[in-house]
Amino acid sequence: MSVKKKVRFQPYNVTIEVDEGENLLRAAMEAGVHINASCGGEGVCGKCKVLLEQGELDSQRGVTQSDEDWRLGYRLACQSRVLSDVVVRIPPESLLDRKVLRLKPKQARLRPLPFDIAELQASGRYHPAFEKKFVKLPSPTLADNVCDLRRLREGLRKNHGIDNITLDFFLLRKLARVLREKDFEVTAVLDFAQRRSRKPRLVDVEPGDTTGNHYAISIDIGTTTVWGQLLELTEGKIIGEAADYNAQISYGEDVISRIVYAQKPEGLDKMQKLVVSTINHVINSLLKQHRVARQDISHLTLAANTTMTHLFLGLEPKYIRLAPYTPTTCMVPPVRGRDLGLDVEEHVFVYCISSVSSYVGGDIVSGVLGSGMYQESKLTLFIDIGTNGEIVVGNQEWMACAACSAGPAFEGGGIRFGMRATQGAIEDISINPANAEPMLITIGMVKPKGICGSGLINILAALMETGLIDPNGRFRENLDTPRLRLGEDGREYVLAWAADTQINQDLTLSEVDIDNLMRAKGAMYAGYLTLLENIGLSIQDVEQVILAGAFGNFINIENAITIGLMPDLPLDRFHFVGNGSLLGATCVAFSREMLEEERRVALMMTNFELSETPGFMDQYVAALFLPHTKAEYFPNVQQRLKSSASS
Amino acid sequence: MSVKKKVRFQPYNVTIEVDEGENLLRAAMEAGVHINASCGGEGVCGKCKVLLEQGELDSQRGVTQSDEDWRLGYRLACQSRVLSDVVVRIPPESLLDRKVLRLKPKQARLRPLPFDIAELQASGRYHPAFEKKFVKLPSPTLADNVCDLRRLREGLRKNHGIDNITLDFFLLRKLARVLREKDFEVTAVLDFAQRRSRKPRLVDVEPGDTTGNHYAISIDIGTTTVWGQLLELTEGKIIGEAADYNAQISYGEDVISRIVYAQKPEGLDKMQKLVVSTINHVINSLLKQHRVARQDISHLTLAANTTMTHLFLGLEPKYIRLAPYTPTTCMVPPVRGRDLGLDVEEHVFVYCISSVSSYVGGDIVSGVLGSGMYQESKLTLFIDIGTNGEIVVGNQEWMACAACSAGPAFEGGGIRFGMRATQGAIEDISINPANAEPMLITIGMVKPKGICGSGLINILAALMETGLIDPNGRFRENLDTPRLRLGEDGREYVLAWAADTQINQDLTLSEVDIDNLMRAKGAMYAGYLTLLENIGLSIQDVEQVILAGAFGNFINIENAITIGLMPDLPLDRFHFVGNGSLLGATCVAFSREMLEEERRVALMMTNFELSETPGFMDQYVAALFLPHTKAEYFPNVQQRLKSSASS
Repeated sequence: MSVKKKVRFQPYNVTIEVDEGENLLRAAMEAGVHINASCGGEGVCGKCKVLLEQGELDSQRGVTQSDEDWRLGYRLACQSRVLSDVVVRIPPESLLDRKVLRLKPKQARLRPLPFDIAELQASGRYHPAFEKKFVKLPSPTLADNVCDLRRLREGLRKNHGIDNITLDFFLLRKLARVLREKDFEVTAVLDFAQRRSRKPRLVDVEPGDTTGNHYAISIDIGTTTVWGQLLELTEGKIIGEAADYNAQISYGEDVISRIVYAQKPEGLDKMQKLVVSTINHVINSLLKQHRVARQDISHLTLAANTTMTHLFLGLEPKYIRLAPYTPTTCMVPPVRGRDLGLDVEEHVFVYCISSVSSYVGGDIVSGVLGSGMYQESKLTLFIDIGTNGEIVVGNQEWMACAACSAGPAFEGGGIRFGMRATQGAIEDISINPANAEPMLITIGMVKPKGICGSGLINILAALMETGLIDPNGRFRENLDTPRLRLGEDGREYVLAWAADTQINQDLTLSEVDIDNLMRAKGAMYAGYLTLLENIGLSIQDVEQVILAGAFGNFINIENAITIGLMPDLPLDRFHFVGNGSLLGATCVAFSREMLEEERRVALMMTNFELSETPGFMDQYVAALFLPHTKAEYFPNVQQRLKSSASS
Repeated sequence: MSVKKKVRFQPYNVTIEVDEGENLLRAAMEAGVHINASCGGEGVCGKCKVLLEQGELDSQRGVTQSDEDWRLGYRLACQSRVLSDVVVRIPPESLLDRKVLRLKPKQARLRPLPFDIAELQASGRYHPAFEKKFVKLPSPTLADNVCDLRRLREGLRKNHGIDNITLDFFLLRKLARVLREKDFEVTAVLDFAQRRSRKPRLVDVEPGDTTGNHYAISIDIGTTTVWGQLLELTEGKIIGEAADYNAQISYGEDVISRIVYAQKPEGLDKMQKLVVSTINHVINSLLKQHRVARQDISHLTLAANTTMTHLFLGLEPKYIRLAPYTPTTCMVPPVRGRDLGLDVEEHVFVYCISSVSSYVGGDIVSGVLGSGMYQESKLTLFIDIGTNGEIVVGNQEWMACAACSAGPAFEGGGIRFGMRATQGAIEDISINPANAEPMLITIGMVKPKGICGSGLINILAALMETGLIDPNGRFRENLDTPRLRLGEDGREYVLAWAADTQINQDLTLSEVDIDNLMRAKGAMYAGYLTLLENIGLSIQDVEQVILAGAFGNFINIENAITIGLMPDLPLDRFHFVGNGSLLGATCVAFSREMLEEERRVALMMTNFELSETPGFMDQYVAALFLPHTKAEYFPNVQQRLKSSASS
């Protein structure tokens, strides 16, 4: 539990509660209080000076700050952490017109939907498909010399009512030894998932009582990053998490370039081995870090987009890329980990979440499972934004889904200074409408070197709200500020001057960048409308929006609505689930019912090829506007923009 | 079809029908006509001279035969083959007392129970578990771009009503290519065996229509020999058969010595690889000889005794040998052939016939299946004699079984001149009661070098019938013949003088040899009685006797009854099935129902450990007599012996 502290910003008399230790500049941004700050938080520009009036800050002295200044109580907001309830005053040089102050915080950061084992347990859904059962078998005698397997079967039947088990051949190779190692006291690992057959499957046998050591690992193979969680199955706890870059990344950043590489001689094999090496690394980290023995892992669950799943399994990905875009398979039978090169015991199988189509993959199905959407009665819009945006609309009764070729704009692609969300990326902004001066926040609070996806959304929204761009995404030409100028790519806004950056050049956002962003957000929005309208529904019918993907967690929803990326719905209808793919993989590891449901859920999701769907192109063109050509779709945004303009 | 010819032996006026080309000495033996012959049929002793009176013989002239002799029509019986109906006369030097002549042939050689595909087909049991189905799938379009696997599933459902298939992961790796190779015309190989799950399993997919190329291979792993049959599944034909010595044989002749070897470091792995190399050799021979492509093999079926099954699978065999004799498993799940090192395609699984216990193995269950015993309403006694004799008693309702430690006597073990049934082994005999001179027939009609199992039975029976030994197996001492004498191992009968053998020493059977034979046959007979009496039945209740094992085919049943190895029942109750193990493996490859039945049949067979079964030791001691201490068990033998003695 984090301790909360109050920060009051004067002269606005705006108070916000933050975690103890929070950076003061971030607190101001969160409170909607503008403070000039153009170095991203590294403390070099010295512009974010505030006066500490009450309480305690842990502050680093600015490099250019005078003794006098420090003694008087001036502190750099970007270099200060909140230690107690404090009152700070914005000095005149940072002070904005009153109208800049947003009187309420832009957005209370929404929490992810909790993944709640206790609730699963309470609702009777907490049955991992894999269970450990201890049995004390009678020792064989001449009068009772049935084979070892039958002795074990009978023990399981008598002691646990488990009958008709199947098993893998390899298990038999150690059965005689294991049974005798602790004098016929053994623990059976059983798979109750109904995917393979109607019968429980005996997965492993271990000498003595090992019911206390029972783990699984869930894996999400992202195109960029592979995530894994170590799961304790008896009590249902997530023990730890690890991640690593997908080693395929050297051969292309997106799925298409990976598919192209796989067409080369040995290319598929190489792609397969690379991702397996990454997964092995993640598994090994988890085991080492949490001191769990490899043989205590009973199974792996895995979710990934369709291409990643194909490459992981060594399946031909060629026809995913070529029209009419047919994967080899959307449903994968359980696969023995070792057959794929995974560094797991012989008995460990991998359970892959099913895909729907070439571009609506197991990661999305997993998110639909993990977020609970498949059990919702509310009409839900599920959105995962990455290189491709995937959309699912529906509820427990029906679901429609589609992939939007949103392009990689929100991952920084096609944007001159676009970058991934790593250190030095501008992630948030406030712009002083009076002089167009920005207040930047970067990841890691260092000098900026580019703009990440969430930063792009926030910048675009700020440009709209300050009236610096018009609804076509064109910069106003009649403003007297050096921040707006004509650059190589047409007109542009200077986010940071060269001296305040890590890249020694002016860091800008141009109209070309904005066009790319508009195409990306337009494709998404057209996708929502197309799916909904094909089913006879409208945006206003959506009762709940679930945002998945690491990116989703960092999106400022109100800003995303402002630019027309998200539908204009009340903020309380939005939920984040974070990495939905990993979440779903974890859920199916914890819940037999969900593991059994996943194929049904995938089959339930009707795939739309948007390029083939009537109306999509019209919707797309209509969405190439800020926020949208049809103002009625964004009533709240229109009102907000009007009130900014009039104030 | 063989052409039959009649042979009349004068002066007895005995006629027998034989196949054209049959050896005349064998014909005489079959007809019960004694002709002196001590060189086993190699033509060197010159004693088996007969006079050709009518018809045509293809004869080699004897090495010592004079021109005159030849011109007069004298021929060596052992050097003559029957080309037409013939009349031959036994010359005075071969002529016996009238009483020696058995007026009817000792035994019409019984045919194996036919393995009749036509009957299986007629009775609706001809459904191989594996079927090939051709489907012409619609090519994918943007409006119909489901994944390849779903396209195939839907094709199978629409065209063949096959639904809910499962499949192995590896198949997916080639699915995209195979579907497109012949423009979405494919043949699916499906496994309808219910062993793995309730769902049909997709085994393989092949481009185009390959329904005409559909094969399986059945394998019998004998301790000595590995047999295989190549099976065409569409029409249900046995295409060919091949055999090779089990390469494990260099490491011990019997199962116990193999188990002992497997306890050495890497010993089990070596045993496993050796038998797999033999099976691969058999498979390769079959494919090459019959020009069948490896990829057209859909599955393997396999039967073997419990130890051979364990060694083939690499399962710990140690506890088979140690009391209380527990195998690792009696039931084996289908195993991927390549996981065992078999030279088959990725998709090929091996289906092993279940065992009952450590010493009643899959070979016996297979014989019970293949012989049809499991469907018989008649009370049946199933006997397989080898190093261990295995016995099954029962019918379609119940079965009891046991292994008898008969010892290797019938395989030549423990008998001074005992040998396997290979060239030079004495396999049949007739003895002139007047002078104790023998008429020998050897395998390959060469000079004798030893005695095989069936020969031992026939010799012992002949010694009994001529009164040369008493019911205790002791040679009479008051006979004036050089054939009976005191040797190294006590009293003995000289079967062949050194000059007439390949071994340059007198070839004999001693009282010690006879004791060993009596122990072996006594153990078997005590086994039958113990099983029957434990169930409240007697020998006379047995309505049918099935003899399995290669050895079984060569046993002269009447002689086996005479010595007390077989029960004294009418000859028409006896049937041979030859290699029952291979027969059953072939049956389950041809019949889904039988494949599904095999576990039930194995489970139905109640195993008795004879050493632990009340009454066995008493029965055994009572059986150490020729034919048995209780004369009432062998009424026909008693009568026959009496009539021989009185005549």
